[in-house]
This record gives sequence, C-alpha cells and structure tokens, in this order.
Amino acid sequence: METTIKVLEKVKLKKPILIEGLPGIGNVGRVAAGYLINELKMKKFAELYSPHFLPLVLLQNDSVASMLKCEFYYHKNRKGDIIILTGDTQSISPEGHYEICTKIIEFVSKMGVKELITLGGFAEGKKIDNPRVIGAVNDKKLLKKYEKLGIDFGKEHPIGTIVGASGLLLGLGGMYNMNGLCIMGETFGLPLVTDPKAADSLLHVLVKLLGIKVDMSKLEKTIKEMEDRIEKTDKIHKKVLQQLSEPKKGEDIKYIG
Amino acid sequence: METTIKVLEKVKLKKPILIEGLPGIGNVGRVAAGYLINELKMKKFAELYSPHFLPLVLLQNDSVASMLKCEFYYHKNRKGDIIILTGDTQSISPEGHYEICTKIIEFVSKMGVKELITLGGFAEGKKIDNPRVIGAVNDKKLLKKYEKLGIDFGKEHPIGTIVGASGLLLGLGGMYNMNGLCIMGETFGLPLVTDPKAADSLLHVLVKLLGIKVDMSKLEKTIKEMEDRIEKTDKIHKKVLQQLSEPKKGEDIKYIG
Amino acid sequence: METTIKVLEKVKLKKPILIEGLPGIGNVGRVAAGYLINELKMKKFAELYSPHFLPLVLLQNDSVASMLKCEFYYHKNRKGDIIILTGDTQSISPEGHYEICTKIIEFVSKMGVKELITLGGFAEGKKIDNPRVIGAVNDKKLLKKYEKLGIDFGKEHPIGTIVGASGLLLGLGGMYNMNGLCIMGETFGLPLVTDPKAADSLLHVLVKLLGIKVDMSKLEKTIKEMEDRIEKTDKIHKKVLQQLSEPKKGEDIKYIG
Amino acid sequence: METTIKVLEKVKLKKPILIEGLPGIGNVGRVAAGYLINELKMKKFAELYSPHFLPLVLLQNDSVASMLKCEFYYHKNRKGDIIILTGDTQSISPEGHYEICTKIIEFVSKMGVKELITLGGFAEGKKIDNPRVIGAVNDKKLLKKYEKLGIDFGKEHPIGTIVGASGLLLGLGGMYNMNGLCIMGETFGLPLVTDPKAADSLLHVLVKLLGIKVDMSKLEKTIKEMEDRIEKTDKIHKKVLQQLSEPKKGEDIKYIG
Repeated sequence: METTIKVLEKVKLKKPILIEGLPGIGNVGRVAAGYLINELKMKKFAELYSPHFLPLVLLQNDSVASMLKCEFYYHKNRKGDIIILTGDTQSISPEGHYEICTKIIEFVSKMGVKELITLGGFAEGKKIDNPRVIGAVNDKKLLKKYEKLGIDFGKEHPIGTIVGASGLLLGLGGMYNMNGLCIMGETFGLPLVTDPKAADSLLHVLVKLLGIKVDMSKLEKTIKEMEDRIEKTDKIHKKVLQQLSEPKKGEDIKYIG
Repeated sequence: METTIKVLEKVKLKKPILIEGLPGIGNVGRVAAGYLINELKMKKFAELYSPHFLPLVLLQNDSVASMLKCEFYYHKNRKGDIIILTGDTQSISPEGHYEICTKIIEFVSKMGVKELITLGGFAEGKKIDNPRVIGAVNDKKLLKKYEKLGIDFGKEHPIGTIVGASGLLLGLGGMYNMNGLCIMGETFGLPLVTDPKAADSLLHVLVKLLGIKVDMSKLEKTIKEMEDRIEKTDKIHKKVLQQLSEPKKGEDIKYIG
Repeated sequence: METTIKVLEKVKLKKPILIEGLPGIGNVGRVAAGYLINELKMKKFAELYSPHFLPLVLLQNDSVASMLKCEFYYHKNRKGDIIILTGDTQSISPEGHYEICTKIIEFVSKMGVKELITLGGFAEGKKIDNPRVIGAVNDKKLLKKYEKLGIDFGKEHPIGTIVGASGLLLGLGGMYNMNGLCIMGETFGLPLVTDPKAADSLLHVLVKLLGIKVDMSKLEKTIKEMEDRIEKTDKIHKKVLQQLSEPKKGEDIKYIG
Repeated sequence: METTIKVLEKVKLKKPILIEGLPGIGNVGRVAAGYLINELKMKKFAELYSPHFLPLVLLQNDSVASMLKCEFYYHKNRKGDIIILTGDTQSISPEGHYEICTKIIEFVSKMGVKELITLGGFAEGKKIDNPRVIGAVNDKKLLKKYEKLGIDFGKEHPIGTIVGASGLLLGLGGMYNMNGLCIMGETFGLPLVTDPKAADSLLHVLVKLLGIKVDMSKLEKTIKEMEDRIEKTDKIHKKVLQQLSEPKKGEDIKYIG
C-alpha cells in the first residue's frame, strides 16, 4: 500500500486556496480547521490513507472501525474557493512526512491551488493570556501582504524551524510555485491539551484573510463537541505509544505534533 | 524480496468468508483459529512471506528450519466456504502491517471474499472469569446482524483502537467492500500467556456465526498440544527481542501482539 | 542505491556448493570461511554492496578506504566446485537481511547452486572445552545424510531459531529448491571475541563434507593473521554503534552477529 | 518524494574536481567549504532535496521558510574547475546516506568529475593546538601524490572508519573510477562547536592542492558571520532531536556529524 488519495467527489474549484489544520501542538490548527468546516458546512471530497500512519483502526462510539486518514473539504467562496485539509494524524516516520506532503501538494496543484495557509500552535512553555499569531512565509515578497493582518513576523520570536506537515507543505508548496503562509497561535504547549484561545486567534486572522463571515461565538461550544473525538485520537496516540512500546518501550515510535 | 503469497493449491470457493487468527494478546485469536483448523481438518492452500517479519528461521524439534510465515487454510461449508488465516507472526514495522494486510485483502478479494472476521484478545489487566466477546464492525449497518449473537458492542467498554492485523484487515476490507467483524475475547493480557477461556468464548460465537458443528470439548487438550509450538514462537519472539537487543538493547524492535 | 552484486570474473562452475561464513557469534563462521579461502587459495569473483550496511567506509592500515562489502570466492574441486561467501558485515535492518539474502540466493541459483552450507556459532554462555557441531537443515530428508558426519541434530539442544544470514539463506534456499545445512560451533558467545576452537570443529566437518584436503595445523596462526582485520571490523562495529548513538544513544542501530 | 537534484543553471566545466564540506564533527568541513565559496565568489548551480532529511523547514531571520537542502557551487579555475558541495544537513537514516551519496556521485560523474576531496573533522577528544591534517584515499596509488602536501597518512593515527557522506562519497566515487581523498582536521570534537583552527589547517592544504589564491586572513571573521546560520542549524539539529523525542525521547533519530 502506498500513500493514496481517494477522491469521493470530482469538484472544479475557482482559484482555490488550501488551508491545512492537522493534529499538532495544542491541537490549535486542527480545532481552527474543524470549526471552519462546521460553520461553513463544508463538504468532504477526498481522503488520504498512508502506510506511514500508525497500524491501527479507530473505533467510533458505536463500535464502527475506520482507518486513520486525512480529509479534504471544499467551500465555494466569492473571493476564491477554499479547500481545508484536516485529519486524524500525521506520519509516524520522517520519510513518511515527505511522501505524504508531496502527495498532498501534487494533488492540490492539479486542482489549481496557487496559495496555501498552514495552521499550527507555537509552544511557549508558559501560560499565554493574549496569544499572538506568529507567521512564516515561503517567499520574502509575501511578508508585506500579510503584515497588515496583525501576524507577527518579528525577529524577536525564537522560531528556528517548523516541524511536520505545517512546515513541509510550506516548503514543498514553494517548489510548486505556491505562495505559502504558516500561522501559529501561541499556546502553552502541553501535550494532549487543546487550546481554544490560540485557535480563536488563528480564526480571526483567517476570517479576514479569506474574506468570509463566520460566527465566532460558538468556538468554545464546538470545541467541547469536538473534544470527544479529539480526546479519543489524543488518547489513542498516547495509548498506542504505550501499547507499541511493550515489550521494548517503543522508543522507535515517532509522533510529531 | 517483497511480501509474497505463494499459492500451494488453486481452489475455487463458494461465498468464502475470511477468518483471521494471528498471534496477539493472549494468543486468543491464534488458538481459536488453530482449533477450527484442527477440528474441521482444513487444508492449507497458500503461504505468505514478508521482509517485514523478523530476519530468522524457526527450528522444529527435528532441527528442520522453516521461514516465518502466515498460512491460509480452506474448508468447504454449506452456509459458505471458510478461509482461515493464521501464522507465526505479524509485521515488526508499522509500514509492514499496511503492506501485508493490503496483500491479504487483495488476495482474498480475488477469491471472492465479501465478509471477514478477525479474532483477537482484549486485555483487561485483571483476571476474567466469564470473558465477554467484544465486537467491532467496519459498517454501522452490520451491528444489528451481529448483536443477536451475544457480541458486546456496548459503549461502556473502553476500546478506542484495534492495533495490528485484526484492526487493519477490518479497515482495509471495508475499502474493498467487505463486511468486517472483529471479535475479541476478554483476557488478562499477560504477555506470552495463552488464554483458553477467551478462545473458547470466541469459538462459541464463531460456531453459531458460521453454521458449523465443532466438538468443543477438546479445546483444552488441543491447546496443550499446540502449546509446544505456541510456546516456541512466543519464546522466539521474546528471545529474539533480547538477542537483537545486544549490544544496544534492541529498542528498535517492534512487536505488536 | 540498491543491494548490488558486482561480478569481477565470469566463472562457470560444476555442481557448485555455497558456503556462507559472515560475521556473527564468536566470528566462528567467518574465521572458518577465511581459513578455507586462504588454504585453498580461492579467487574472488564477485562483491555485494548494500544500503543496508552501516553508512561508512573502512580504512586499511595504509589509509586506503573501502566500502563495506560481502565477497564471493570460488574453488574448482573434484567432488563439486565450491563458492565461499564471506564479508565485513551483515545488514543493520531486518528488511535488509531479507533483501540481501534474496539477492544472494538468486545470484548463486543462476550459477547452478543446489546445495548450501551456512556456518555460525552457537552461544552457550559458558566455557566450552570440546565444542560440538550443532546442525539444522531445511529439509527433513537431509538429516540422514549429515548425521553420519558427527553433526548433532539431537533434540536436547535448545536452539529455537537461527537469526540473520545463516538462518535466512537456509530458509530462502529451500524456497529455491536448494538443500541447506547450517552448522554451528559451540562457543562461549562473548561479543567481539573470536573463537578458534569452535571454528576448528566446523572445519573438520567441512573437510569431510566437501571431500577436500586442508592442512588444519595453521588455523591458530591464520586466525592471528586475520585477527588484525577481524579486530578492526569488530571494533568498527562497536565503535560505530557508539558513534551513531550520540547524541541519542543509538538505540536504532541493529547488529545481528 | 525521492532524493532529487534540482539544476538551477546548466554549466559546462573543465576537468572539474568535487569538494564536499557538509555538516559534521566540529563543522570543520562545512566551514572550510563555506569560506572557499565566499572567497571565490562561487555560484550555486544545483540543489539536492531528500526525504531522508529531517521533516521540517528552516526559518531565516526574516521568517522565510526553506527546505533543508544540500547545495552545489562552481568556480572556473585554470588548473581545473571546482565544484563545492555543502548544505544544511546529512541523511538521518543509514539507507538515506547510501541513496544521497549515490545520487551525488552519479550527478557529478555526468559532469565529468574524476577527482573528489571530502572534508571532515577528526575528533581527538582533547584540546588540539596545532591540528594535523589526517588523510585517507580510495586508491593506494594516490598516497604518493598527496603525501607531499603535508597530509598525515601515518599508521599511528587510530582511524578505522569514516562515517557519513565524507566516507561514502570516497568509497562510491572509487566505484565510479574517481580518485578520492578525504582530509580531516584534528579537532576536540565537542558536539555543536565550530573549530576554526581545524578548518584553517584544511584550507591551507586545499589552496596548495587546487592551485588557487585565497586570502586566508578573513577566516575567523567569516566564521563569525557564518556562525549565525551555523548556530541556527546546529541548534535546529539539537532542538529537533529534543522535539522529536517527545513523548518517547526520540531515540530513533540519527544524526551523523
């Protein structure tokens, strides 16, 4: 089995922009992406499966098993259509990250994507009251465009790298001539703790950026509704790490938030 | 070398159902599968080899070496023919699990399999007197059909995932339009300890499900006979883990029961 | 780069038998193979390179670097020509073992090999004064043939598996219709300690088996001459394990003796 | 995604020699290579990307993300044109080292490279006042040629192996009929500490060897300028190792200096 994208519906999109919100630090990107999918009533049109995910199935409350996967949703929008990529997990091997992100970029490139925004959390290691939105781009000329939106590109922040899909999609996108922006909400960065405040700060930037109207008042409520599934996959990730670690303490399992 | 299925006998089966019982928690699935193979005098028709198994050969009592493998057996049955998949081991790498399970599903799909049952143990971490049979399906609509058989699909049980072949075959089978059921016998879950009670509970469900007649009185006796080989492979898994671990304590070896 | 066999000389051999002596427990197989190569003045005709070896070059005393490799030697012999496979190392990954051994078996199969003997050490964990030669075959019908030679196939010895090339070549050879024998000299099994006594016991069996005449009196002397190179590769394996382990203690490196 | 070399400018070079200076012990090779690139105002003509690098992007001071990569520079030179290979990182897996080095050798072989020099540091584990330049070649007949340049090929030095790109390029180059020299500057060998003295000693040999004129007085200054980027990638390597290690202490990440 290779990393495969299964198309559920063939859609033609106008000037589509890709937004990625996969599991990661504080679940910031995933929660923000999930909220947009809910509020915009976006429709799923493709799924991604990979041998670089954990070798297990996820059980829903009603005992129905499903493969780990990433999912693509779309939304028709005046300013340019929107694709959101979210999912249960990221690759568990370094090579897998490159393979999966390349598949994603090739897939959306064929759909006409010329711009992408990746969402993430930035772990500060302390309580954050008013989380900044810290940004990175894949082309210097994009800085001007995005600075107006209150994204912090300042030199004082100590980011040296962006690990995982949020980083690689930015880099690989650049190689496919896509303009790329990564926005990260400041968060404490505790493992397996979802941070609604950081997600909220990302959403405010996204709404302006995409020119969409979204009722922001339901975020906390929606997070509570999402929490069951988030908690399950978080627990799964933790549990599987422990499970896989017997009898040798699983030092081989890599999970990059 | 790629994962390869070597066909020993070309068989045509009517409405075949696949039952998987590979090594795992409490050896529950493997023991139940082995008992059926013995009692139904099933015939081996194919073997699976993989570079994702441990790099070793197994020695039988008479000093005859054999590759680690999985085995396919068949049985002609009025209600629908039966294929049983059992074997010495599972993949030792996450990617290997996906590769092997995909090969299996593609192989049995060509044979006409539309339904599969995977067997496993569910570790409770405590002594279980009357082990329940806990179930999961790959399609919600299957719940009704199986609930009648005393399988517990209740929400109170804490299963979030099914790891390894029992899980992935369920998930991948679903992608090939196969109805899938996983039944897990409750067991203590000690490593390398075979649990006949849990296997017995699985067998009672299987007999009803498959519409077959099997003398259940010989289970304990058969397990004792199987024990030598089971013990050997169990010891092997344990021994190999230790062996491979020198000189660096083998933290890289993964075995998922 | 894939695992590659580079042919240095095209040779036609009559009824060739393959003898494998790669590094392993007590270096028993490697030392016995090396002694035969020296005494029979065998000629190298092929080399094997693999990305599954450690990523390094070996320096000879005169500062000349060479890739890690395995080597094939041949010897014309009345009873049937002889191929000896020896080398610096084995695979460092489980999948690599399968890949390399498959390449070897396919290569010698094309040369007409129908019989193979793999050499190894059997770690007893205690001092051995008169090392037995313990054997395993890949086909029950071979036992009779070899029992006459003083090889111990008795059930009292506790071998359950043969790990690495000595085992896999036996197993894979069987799948290519080759008769296979593995002989293991009993040894203490200390890591990185060469055991001449165990090698000597193997050589006595080999001489009878191959119908060759070899002056056995020079073994200890030859081992001393080989010791420099053996020590170097042994140290290398040990040193590299340490080197690779910084800064994360190298738990990912596997070396199977 | 496979390891890929992206050609930025098609150049025709006369008798080109390849010099490799990738990150490693004491950053000796990388710093020496970087100094030559600066002083000779060399031009970049190709980049190498690989799934065997860490799965992350690097952020420059101005928040611009870039993929991890290696870079090829060229310089027209009377005695023979010069290609320098430097970069952010090396492979994080053993197999990746073989794959990347094979790609490099095949690429420069097509450009006409018949000679290569790899640069490295040799960790002495103690303070070195007058660092020797220790050498290794891939063909015995080269020793005479290089001994005149003050390179130490003496037997008293304890090098048994050269790990990573500096070693493998030497070995693989030999298989492509390239004359290869590795020169290593003696250094303390502290992790993540750049050693200008050892780099200086390498540069003195290189200048003689290549027949070029280079103002050596600016080395310390240039290192200070490079230090920001070197420090960043060093910190990245260190930081990423820590990051990846949560929640399982990342023992699976390999970085070979």
